[in-house]
Amino acid sequence: MDTIALTCELIKRASVTPNDEGCQELIGERLARLGFQLESMVFEDTTNLWARRGSEGPVFCFAGHTDVVPAGAEHAWVYPPFSATRKDGYIYGRGAADMKGSLAAMVVATERFVANHPDHQGSIAFLITSDEEGPFINGTPKVIETLEAREEKITWCLVGEPSSTAELGDVVKNGRRGSLTGDLTVFGIQGHVAYPHLAENPIHLAAPALAALAQSHWDNGNSSFPPTSFQVSNIHAGTGAGNVIPGEMHVQFNFRFSTESTSEQLKQRVIDIVEQHELDYSLTWKLNGEPFLTDSGELVDATVKAIAEFTGRLPELSTAGGTSDGRFIAPTGAQVIELGPVNATIHKVNECVAEDDLETLTRVYEKILENLLC
Amino acid sequence: MDTIALTCELIKRASVTPNDEGCQELIGERLARLGFQLESMVFEDTTNLWARRGSEGPVFCFAGHTDVVPAGAEHAWVYPPFSATRKDGYIYGRGAADMKGSLAAMVVATERFVANHPDHQGSIAFLITSDEEGPFINGTPKVIETLEAREEKITWCLVGEPSSTAELGDVVKNGRRGSLTGDLTVFGIQGHVAYPHLAENPIHLAAPALAALAQSHWDNGNSSFPPTSFQVSNIHAGTGAGNVIPGEMHVQFNFRFSTESTSEQLKQRVIDIVEQHELDYSLTWKLNGEPFLTDSGELVDATVKAIAEFTGRLPELSTAGGTSDGRFIAPTGAQVIELGPVNATIHKVNECVAEDDLETLTRVYEKILENLLC
Repeated sequence: MDTIALTCELIKRASVTPNDEGCQELIGERLARLGFQLESMVFEDTTNLWARRGSEGPVFCFAGHTDVVPAGAEHAWVYPPFSATRKDGYIYGRGAADMKGSLAAMVVATERFVANHPDHQGSIAFLITSDEEGPFINGTPKVIETLEAREEKITWCLVGEPSSTAELGDVVKNGRRGSLTGDLTVFGIQGHVAYPHLAENPIHLAAPALAALAQSHWDNGNSSFPPTSFQVSNIHAGTGAGNVIPGEMHVQFNFRFSTESTSEQLKQRVIDIVEQHELDYSLTWKLNGEPFLTDSGELVDATVKAIAEFTGRLPELSTAGGTSDGRFIAPTGAQVIELGPVNATIHKVNECVAEDDLETLTRVYEKILENLLC
Repeated sequence: MDTIALTCELIKRASVTPNDEGCQELIGERLARLGFQLESMVFEDTTNLWARRGSEGPVFCFAGHTDVVPAGAEHAWVYPPFSATRKDGYIYGRGAADMKGSLAAMVVATERFVANHPDHQGSIAFLITSDEEGPFINGTPKVIETLEAREEKITWCLVGEPSSTAELGDVVKNGRRGSLTGDLTVFGIQGHVAYPHLAENPIHLAAPALAALAQSHWDNGNSSFPPTSFQVSNIHAGTGAGNVIPGEMHVQFNFRFSTESTSEQLKQRVIDIVEQHELDYSLTWKLNGEPFLTDSGELVDATVKAIAEFTGRLPELSTAGGTSDGRFIAPTGAQVIELGPVNATIHKVNECVAEDDLETLTRVYEKILENLLC
């Protein structure tokens, strides 16, 4: 079964997070035939597959997820979302681009590579989860925890996230910004709007601090990262009644931060601004991920060369966009990049992937293996 | 039936807004016996009573409401809220102070006054509604509309709202601030927090404007009114998701304003501030009531003298506190004051009124009639 056929087989398994629906079994069978050792790691509701061929370093790892986001309004799809319909050079279906096409390309690339280089250097591994689109608790983080506990290291990791924007290989993600969320509650004193002297309005108290936070400049970024950005995502105060001064206001905000700031620095700067405004407050934090960067090195070089060879393009190295499971793998010291198909339709109705792109992606993946393990 | 007995009879009628439960019938029977002409004015769900004795001016009008706010958690009451339990010199029950005690005192005061002065000058009227605690649409506003349409004028109006704070007659309300509510929506562009350059955060855009509004000084008030106050009562933006920049923010605010500002001036100043900050916005207004003031004059003089005579107190003339139906009567040109029992327990569990205060209030009301109509 080639990349296109395997992609279709995977799409037909409606593996909405955290369900795997047998995708990992299908992939595992193919890898077992190549001499991979399979290890199914089940944590709570999540099934993960760790597969490895070879026992020596360096370790090249394909990382990806079998789970998909829900199809949403099925009637809005031109073809049923789990039908894997092929039409005019595209495969349509939920997960086609994010990221069952990549998984199929990884498997087929590995088959071809092993056939040509049965005695390759180092090891090839697959880290496949079914919890990337969800709470990312029982997926990649737990697998990495397990590997770290037994000192099993990944040297190079290629995550199959759809990194391309207009054409296959035009963008390779070689890092991600950090993500830090803060939940701020500003306390006042509830009261009747007719008696403002008996109340303290937390909205009035907090507005200048919010303005200062929104106008703050956090850092300039650097050659690999855009400047750190701050965004308030939610703000709520008030009972709904028009004549009540609310007793407290809730504000949730998020930083996407470059390697020029640490999460601790950002927290302290927020606290400084809040305290300058003499607010009575509580503040809790959630660090969703530290920023990471895989600068020039063997993995980036091998990837750029392979893309150039099969597409003629020199990919842009980017750290923009949302988070991925790469953030859990990078802290182990692994070089991590993301390379996958065009992301224009992901998480939308009529998600699709170009068949030609999957063929090319398979060749690129195979070439990366050759560049690194031969 | 004296004031205390009539108060108890009225409390036993559980007339939660907009229900009257026969209170107006009870009052009307008493007034009819005195020669009042009764006119029941029913608008939608609300029953109102307009009663008048005499056809000449000047017209002295007692105004009040038979409806009460809900009892709330009945188990928290020491005595059932509609039992009208008498204990240690107090009558307990929902509406005891707000304002069935005042209604009873008005009726008994009128009975005594008419008995002593059957040929009094001018007219005595009662304007009783059962929609003061609710949406105030089909109550006093509609009665006033009807009177205005037939050019029937009130010269002096005494509203029985519980104006006293510590002791009976310590405070007379001789006006009320205006109330103006604004609903502001600030528009941005929704987006993902990871791509802030593709979005515009309405919270960030509006925060400086909110800070400016909260810090604005609107006027200094005057000898009768405290300075105009501005309070944001509700603020909401965000989908709940932590990674979405909201597309719009809703802000509701309220002015309580003195006669030093007009509603039109306040509106314009808000618009100026919002536009200085170059916001994309929509803004709707609700004028809940213009400020009114009954400065020194016959009604205030008659009331102050009557209070002094029976309590030895010189009442404070105040415009503080919430709105009342007086705001609908004052625009007709009537002099309007509010005088009623101590308001410490109104809208709370265990609402109560002192029996002695009701006796004194009855004498004060009777004396006001004498001061004005003899």
